[in-house]
Amino acid sequence: MQAISTQTTYLESKIAALDFPQEPANLYDPLRYFMQLGGKRMRPMLTLMGSALFGKPAEKALHAALAVEIFHNFSLIHDDIMDEAPLRRKQPTVHTRWNTNIAILSGDVLLVKAYQEICKQDAAVLPELLAVFNQTAVEVCEGQQSDMDFEQQSDVSIAAYIEMIRLKTSVLLGCALEMGAIVAEASLTDRKLIYEFGQHIGIAFQIQDDILDLYADPEKFGKQVGGDVLANKKTLLYLKAKELANPAQLHELETLQSAKDPAEKVDGVRNLFDALQVKQEARKIMDLHYEIALKALAAIDVAEDRKKDLRELADYLLVREI
Amino acid sequence: MQAISTQTTYLESKIAALDFPQEPANLYDPLRYFMQLGGKRMRPMLTLMGSALFGKPAEKALHAALAVEIFHNFSLIHDDIMDEAPLRRKQPTVHTRWNTNIAILSGDVLLVKAYQEICKQDAAVLPELLAVFNQTAVEVCEGQQSDMDFEQQSDVSIAAYIEMIRLKTSVLLGCALEMGAIVAEASLTDRKLIYEFGQHIGIAFQIQDDILDLYADPEKFGKQVGGDVLANKKTLLYLKAKELANPAQLHELETLQSAKDPAEKVDGVRNLFDALQVKQEARKIMDLHYEIALKALAAIDVAEDRKKDLRELADYLLVREI
Repeated sequence: MQAISTQTTYLESKIAALDFPQEPANLYDPLRYFMQLGGKRMRPMLTLMGSALFGKPAEKALHAALAVEIFHNFSLIHDDIMDEAPLRRKQPTVHTRWNTNIAILSGDVLLVKAYQEICKQDAAVLPELLAVFNQTAVEVCEGQQSDMDFEQQSDVSIAAYIEMIRLKTSVLLGCALEMGAIVAEASLTDRKLIYEFGQHIGIAFQIQDDILDLYADPEKFGKQVGGDVLANKKTLLYLKAKELANPAQLHELETLQSAKDPAEKVDGVRNLFDALQVKQEARKIMDLHYEIALKALAAIDVAEDRKKDLRELADYLLVREI
Repeated sequence: MQAISTQTTYLESKIAALDFPQEPANLYDPLRYFMQLGGKRMRPMLTLMGSALFGKPAEKALHAALAVEIFHNFSLIHDDIMDEAPLRRKQPTVHTRWNTNIAILSGDVLLVKAYQEICKQDAAVLPELLAVFNQTAVEVCEGQQSDMDFEQQSDVSIAAYIEMIRLKTSVLLGCALEMGAIVAEASLTDRKLIYEFGQHIGIAFQIQDDILDLYADPEKFGKQVGGDVLANKKTLLYLKAKELANPAQLHELETLQSAKDPAEKVDGVRNLFDALQVKQEARKIMDLHYEIALKALAAIDVAEDRKKDLRELADYLLVREI
């Protein structure tokens, strides 16, 4: 993971060097603030790795990488408004620290900035970069809308749920990698394979996130255990439980939705999920996507040793014991 | 104006044919609704005219024209949220008919759709189209932020106000025309001249709008006369009045801000403005920008008869007697 740590330092310095104007301060201060809140910078890292995989310097894809990170931050600023989230990375969200109007508008300008970064790449690859980026940006919006719609629906299928997380979070990982591959002038077949790798790693990661909410070691997890349960979120575990439950268990699950005591609620739901072996079922789906991802990576027509970093990253993202 | 009317019909048919997906309905229904609310379609018209001016078929710039119109609608959907506007073209705004979250997200996807349209133009002109479009999109956001900031400020200079309307509304007219010129492969000098023409016509039009609010013939205007006055908006007339008023008049202007009776308030402000000859002062600034625009048009290196449509459009936009 030496390569990854070096690239993270490189990316952080380039993100810190992003040049936002001083005025209007209410438009650009929120962006300076938000872009520096940190995070794993996983998406731009994937773009750099996508270029390196095909034998070009990672730095060649820098502006595409920054575009992906900027886009991700745009979507977080707007999602935080929609989700009424007070905190992001333990700091106040933009609409909380400033206000909703400022969060809308600074998000908008950030999306345009993403396009400005893409346009710094070679003109020869611009149409292809924009094609995958535009398509992905549309899908991320569609995923966010489906996520909001699902909160109002009682009958969400598991297939629809997986499709929602694919759009909302996973396509951007595929896009990040493919943009690196485009810069490196990879073949269309290899581009599609690396996109598939990213997309399915993303789906697996998202399912893992659902599992960890309830089954993580609280000391390692760094988040409140059972947060999704307390918020009555329709996670994969919940949907799977609804699918497998008998009428009595279904009734219990519904009753637990309105349980008052937090510890009692989380324990009750966990006991029910355990009885239904919901974790194991979710784990199966997660493993399936992990395997599809690895198969796509294996099929890419480059020397095996070039794939080492991506394999390590996948293991790093998905190793947590659950 | 025969040419303009034919092009409007053409544009309306192409806007009606814009193909938004059916699902998620909460994301795309608002776009189908909003794009059909009408309007003069002046901006895409300018793009078509920008192409025709330089001897290429107007239709060659269709996708750039649609991108400009789509961008304009994106900015209206988000501005309507920020301005808490219940109506747009006498119909409910998106955040009123659906809700704020849906208006944010469908606006976002509409901005991406604008980029998708631009990408349908020839790859050879894509970098130049995107450069002017990106810059303009950023400036429109900056203008909207300044407009919101000014509402909280007591000391807005006339120069700052003109700069705000330039960014918020006028650069998009310049951009629309220049995108047409880029598609038609005009020289860089001519591109900048046609941009200047559009930008200054836009500023003149915006100032005219400020004047018409208070001085239009109510029967021709189609809007409530004095709407800006009743909303205590800092228009050019108001800023000019503050600049020219003696202490007693300044006090009167301040007192009128909180007047209860609408007719009394509008009449009182109009009398004060008349005494200060504020309308004539605003008209001077408006005429100045109109002249700069016409000079830029005159300097463009194409046969005079090709400029006829743009001159007519400028006259059409700015003839109203005030």
